[in-house]
Amino acid sequence: MKLLIANKNYSSWSLRAWLTLRGFEIPFEEELLLLNGEGWKEAMLERSPTGQVPVLIDGDLVIPETLAIIEYVADKYPQKHIWPADRNLRARARAASAEMHAGFTRLRNAAPMNLRASHPGKVSLDYVADDLDRLQKVWGDLLDRSGGPYLGGAFSAVDAMFAPVATRIRVYDLPVPDFAAEYVEAIYALPAFQEWYADALKESWIVEQDEIDFIQGRKQ
Amino acid sequence: MKLLIANKNYSSWSLRAWLTLRGFEIPFEEELLLLNGEGWKEAMLERSPTGQVPVLIDGDLVIPETLAIIEYVADKYPQKHIWPADRNLRARARAASAEMHAGFTRLRNAAPMNLRASHPGKVSLDYVADDLDRLQKVWGDLLDRSGGPYLGGAFSAVDAMFAPVATRIRVYDLPVPDFAAEYVEAIYALPAFQEWYADALKESWIVEQDEIDFIQGRKQ
Repeated sequence: MKLLIANKNYSSWSLRAWLTLRGFEIPFEEELLLLNGEGWKEAMLERSPTGQVPVLIDGDLVIPETLAIIEYVADKYPQKHIWPADRNLRARARAASAEMHAGFTRLRNAAPMNLRASHPGKVSLDYVADDLDRLQKVWGDLLDRSGGPYLGGAFSAVDAMFAPVATRIRVYDLPVPDFAAEYVEAIYALPAFQEWYADALKESWIVEQDEIDFIQGRKQ
Repeated sequence: MKLLIANKNYSSWSLRAWLTLRGFEIPFEEELLLLNGEGWKEAMLERSPTGQVPVLIDGDLVIPETLAIIEYVADKYPQKHIWPADRNLRARARAASAEMHAGFTRLRNAAPMNLRASHPGKVSLDYVADDLDRLQKVWGDLLDRSGGPYLGGAFSAVDAMFAPVATRIRVYDLPVPDFAAEYVEAIYALPAFQEWYADALKESWIVEQDEIDFIQGRKQ
């Protein structure tokens, strides 16, 4: 299998799919499609049915959409429990993941993933207050039910879905209760996350705002 | 199981979950939460963790988010093949469904679901051209691969995800190629859809634009 991803410092959706695969030790190649320079949008459209990354390629099968990639590997490797093994916890993990997929809009707009950066005070807390409140409820509920340290107990796909949000809390120094701050640290402590993070720190491309918007799914 | 839904004429997300359950003859009760009158937002927040519908309740388990509801019933009734039985086709169906979940924004904004209405000419075709083009590619690809008449061959969850879009094509008289127009008719021909549609035609509540926006997920 091959996973098409974009710049590791910025591409929050790439991180979600990549972290799922690497975190579960699923063998795959990665290919970096840089969102820089002339013609990157056209290049992306040539490789991805939606013009966006990540894209998983398995033989003739080309799968865009992070949630679909996750479900595909969950289907292909049922013994790995990509989602929590308990059916009810799995349903709750999927609900949180779907909410992440189309929600938390203000937090995503105001605090774009930028792993190398440190931007305390940059985000208007009033603007993101409702999203932070909801995030705290979602994380708190899952951690209470599973016992932690990850949202489904052991690491699972729902953690991959929220990993970019964890980085935003650190990078923008957003106020969260202790249990949420501990969860952010648990994400940073994942060996697979550390590998991604180290790669992101090595990246030195200058990326324009419209490329960041595109890469993080704010533009069609 | 009980499914919380909103006004059948307008609630596109309720239709998606409901059509999955009814289309696969899964026993469930429905409860209509009317988005009308004073205090409907507060009432919704009391019943739904996200403040939105649909919500599936199974004993102590309360599941918001349409995609999570669909995956839960797929988990609970594996013999029903809520998603296409072929793994590759299933992956493609899930990718299309995830794209529907967070995409086709212009089409959703310009052409809100309104089953009782007939609004030819109301939508700016320039504004929705890219979405219609992409829709045609997604439907065409799935119908070609599966052989139709539904996107995964037999009716499956991906058809439920796109059913509200099918209604928009008819209600707003949007231009689509013949194969897509035939698919729209195939959606309207589903006995489960006909049941929902008949109920929607009986509804006579006057719903304000901000309620329609909320019900269709354009407001947090």
